[in-house]
Amino acid sequence: MNDAPIGVFDSGVGGLTVVRAIMSRLPHESIIYFGDNARGPYGPRPIQEVRDFALEISGFLEDLGVKIIVIACNSATSAGLLEVQRRCRVPVLGVVEPGARGAVQATRNRRIGVIGTVVTIRSRAYLRAIRALDAGATVISRACPTLVDFVERGEVEGPRVEAEVAKYLSPLKKRGVDTLVLGCTHYPLLRGVIGRFMGQEVRLISSDEEVAREVEENLRRRGYLRASDTPPNYRFMCSGDVGQAVSLGRFFLGPEVEEVERVELPLASSGSFPKGHLSEVSCP
Amino acid sequence: MNDAPIGVFDSGVGGLTVVRAIMSRLPHESIIYFGDNARGPYGPRPIQEVRDFALEISGFLEDLGVKIIVIACNSATSAGLLEVQRRCRVPVLGVVEPGARGAVQATRNRRIGVIGTVVTIRSRAYLRAIRALDAGATVISRACPTLVDFVERGEVEGPRVEAEVAKYLSPLKKRGVDTLVLGCTHYPLLRGVIGRFMGQEVRLISSDEEVAREVEENLRRRGYLRASDTPPNYRFMCSGDVGQAVSLGRFFLGPEVEEVERVELPLASSGSFPKGHLSEVSCP
Repeated sequence: MNDAPIGVFDSGVGGLTVVRAIMSRLPHESIIYFGDNARGPYGPRPIQEVRDFALEISGFLEDLGVKIIVIACNSATSAGLLEVQRRCRVPVLGVVEPGARGAVQATRNRRIGVIGTVVTIRSRAYLRAIRALDAGATVISRACPTLVDFVERGEVEGPRVEAEVAKYLSPLKKRGVDTLVLGCTHYPLLRGVIGRFMGQEVRLISSDEEVAREVEENLRRRGYLRASDTPPNYRFMCSGDVGQAVSLGRFFLGPEVEEVERVELPLASSGSFPKGHLSEVSCP
Repeated sequence: MNDAPIGVFDSGVGGLTVVRAIMSRLPHESIIYFGDNARGPYGPRPIQEVRDFALEISGFLEDLGVKIIVIACNSATSAGLLEVQRRCRVPVLGVVEPGARGAVQATRNRRIGVIGTVVTIRSRAYLRAIRALDAGATVISRACPTLVDFVERGEVEGPRVEAEVAKYLSPLKKRGVDTLVLGCTHYPLLRGVIGRFMGQEVRLISSDEEVAREVEENLRRRGYLRASDTPPNYRFMCSGDVGQAVSLGRFFLGPEVEEVERVELPLASSGSFPKGHLSEVSCP
């Protein structure tokens, strides 16, 4: 049993869809969320910079005493997951592997579609993760650059977004995918439009739910689920505009976002990262 | 719903520990088992040859109408999983990834021990699979060449096997692993001796249980669990000595092994493997 909070971060508010999925699956767990809205979106930035941000935020969350870290951002997962795992003492989960895994388990015809931002699709992180689990799967990917803007404007229904979704998804539908990975933390808010366009027979795999499943398994197997009877604690932090974080936060998550603390960049951290303890020893 | 059987194969009888775990988790599922005891163990054979055997047996099982294939053999998984996945129409699971995953989820200090045959440890398949899930885990591996012989002789308790286990596992214990992967399908029968030597605080990860969990998730998410009310069908086949297969089979699995059919090598197969449908398409 471990009453420490779960740490979650993203380049902005998109990761709150992951928080929502964790809250609904693990209602007794406390959560600290950090949205880097002063520097997000990470998409257009150089990989090394995104990796440094991910390391900085992870160190900050570790110092706050989290028991597990979730990188709830596809760009930061692609750019920095391995380095963050090497440098942190607590386990670190990204969003890509759980989504890939969900898709491989769900598909019947082994034709999997993946949509995401340009950076995520270009990184081929989903392709690699899917192939590692099923080398015979056919993966059809498509970057959907404008969808994040629709979601952030709150336009998640209506003819304009429907037309945009149809434009992006038509080729995937034509190629007969029976499973579609929503490879961006903003997309679960477009589940309705996307689901109607793809049709009932296509399964939508949402990385938020898959990651929440993974967090639960991870904590349960370690014996680290929270035991306390007191209500859990939710703490929301951001690096930029608090007003924007609160209003978008409520849209993404709900009324749980009452107060958002602003944290000055660069983040204070004890800098106590142990030197990467990656090692392999074969005993003679 | 899908009443087709689950196909499982191994180079001999070791994979029956996986069958037992699947039976206990999914008691309504029918199973076809093929033990290649005429050509096993695969360990000392060239990788290409083991891969060809894995392809041959998978094609044979597909022709028998299985809905999923489990390669219940660490050597065959390391040598041929990807190729078999590419060539089969049905999903194919190996034993390595599920075991690695179980270990990554269970460890608290992120120090994971792996034991297996020489081939399995040399292939570094567990190391790769563990690192893909947690790049910061420390993996300490050890080949235990004689343990399979002890198990096949039925010597799974007593001072001789205890001394052998102690010799192999002392270095792993000294290095403070808190989780140990039993990376060979024979080792679950040594769980008692290994567990007593490592101590209560060390979690033993048995690939048989992890694979069974994975098979269940996979069939459930596809909607492919068996629906029929009639008792499931178990069919055991081997390529070599039937007498040996029956007696060892009962030892590994239990009285369910009533009858073993002998199948002549090379296995008849429709040869209808579709050309690898591996492909990736990025939509413009």
